[in-house]
Amino acid sequence: MEPVLFYGVPHGCSFGSIVALEWLNQPYRLCRIDMLDKPKGYSRFNPSQQTPALLLESGETLGESLAVLHHIAARDLDRKLGFAQGTPDFDRLNRALAFLHTELHAAFSPAWAAFKVADGAPEKDMLRTMGRNNAAHSLAHLDAVLADRDWLVGNHRTVADAYLVGIARWAEDLRLFELARDYPRLHAHLQKLEADEAVIFAHAIEDERPVKSSGRFQSHVTVEELLPRLAA
Amino acid sequence: MEPVLFYGVPHGCSFGSIVALEWLNQPYRLCRIDMLDKPKGYSRFNPSQQTPALLLESGETLGESLAVLHHIAARDLDRKLGFAQGTPDFDRLNRALAFLHTELHAAFSPAWAAFKVADGAPEKDMLRTMGRNNAAHSLAHLDAVLADRDWLVGNHRTVADAYLVGIARWAEDLRLFELARDYPRLHAHLQKLEADEAVIFAHAIEDERPVKSSGRFQSHVTVEELLPRLAA
Repeated sequence: MEPVLFYGVPHGCSFGSIVALEWLNQPYRLCRIDMLDKPKGYSRFNPSQQTPALLLESGETLGESLAVLHHIAARDLDRKLGFAQGTPDFDRLNRALAFLHTELHAAFSPAWAAFKVADGAPEKDMLRTMGRNNAAHSLAHLDAVLADRDWLVGNHRTVADAYLVGIARWAEDLRLFELARDYPRLHAHLQKLEADEAVIFAHAIEDERPVKSSGRFQSHVTVEELLPRLAA
Repeated sequence: MEPVLFYGVPHGCSFGSIVALEWLNQPYRLCRIDMLDKPKGYSRFNPSQQTPALLLESGETLGESLAVLHHIAARDLDRKLGFAQGTPDFDRLNRALAFLHTELHAAFSPAWAAFKVADGAPEKDMLRTMGRNNAAHSLAHLDAVLADRDWLVGNHRTVADAYLVGIARWAEDLRLFELARDYPRLHAHLQKLEADEAVIFAHAIEDERPVKSSGRFQSHVTVEELLPRLAA
């Protein structure tokens, strides 16, 4: 069977992997994981139960978003979602992916953690402020980077842009910033991506609306339907 | 000039990049960055002022540890510090590097942040507890992974092992855990690495003791000495 992407909802960072799979234009399937009520068998594919994870033809499940994005790019370098190992652009893509995963994604963590703290507790404000400060730092960096570039890396869209569009939205989900006002160049870049067919598709998938794939999406499958592949 | 690694002290995550450069066995130089008192010109090489960063022959400075490690591995795949793009082991290495950077490294962040909070403040305990819980989760995962493996990825040492040895020590630096007691398999793996000539070298570099390179370390250079390369 084609690779199957386990993607998390609501508003997971898996979003970027869905976009990248559409851009890759190879057949793939999707398996929806409600992160607030995870399907029972999912831990057998990915013990950490995080998303995204990619079930490969070999039966192995590849975890960690950064690894999934690298894998998708390497499946067909001619699609230019990544770059050949050993080139300067390969280095720059790694730098961008590392920044997005270790700085921007991590920056929001305290603000997400604040949700688990009771209203009125002093820790709640501290966590939210910490998240806001961290995220402001990372978002300002991206806004500056995008001042003289059309894409995060190189002169065309890559998996880094796909990943960015899935996590930058947390700035507004968490009501920390208003991107159009606070980071206008980043906002403009995201608007350009929002007009992309693959991004429109990924939103429709998340929201369970009718989809039109501009890539080669085949169908949804359930964890239960995939269990026999573990034995294969 | 040869590549120059900007490494951070004390006990920075740059440690792994020093180890990887020794293993690579190509000429390189080092530039020491005191993270508590950064040299003035460093921001001209790396605006984020983080470490590690690698000044390349091209004059470009590559930031982000994960990108530096990937670059070192790709300089000579025959040294087997990484794997060829598109192979299953390349995926597994990316998964391990992503885990170490986004989970383990990030897990310690709240505990480091606690240092900046006044003694006795309720936030201090909360941050420390949060850091401890996060780190326990990541360290337990590594301990389990190492139950049936000699190395983190594949059947030989890679940049993932080099990186691990530089950050796992934070568990004891922060007095959160005693690795020999709490995570014995991880501890044994780290002990094996501690006996490696390159790891012994990297400790001596950090501690400013006399060094014996088993690779091709040339010399230390200062930020000031490197400034002319910016114009090149």
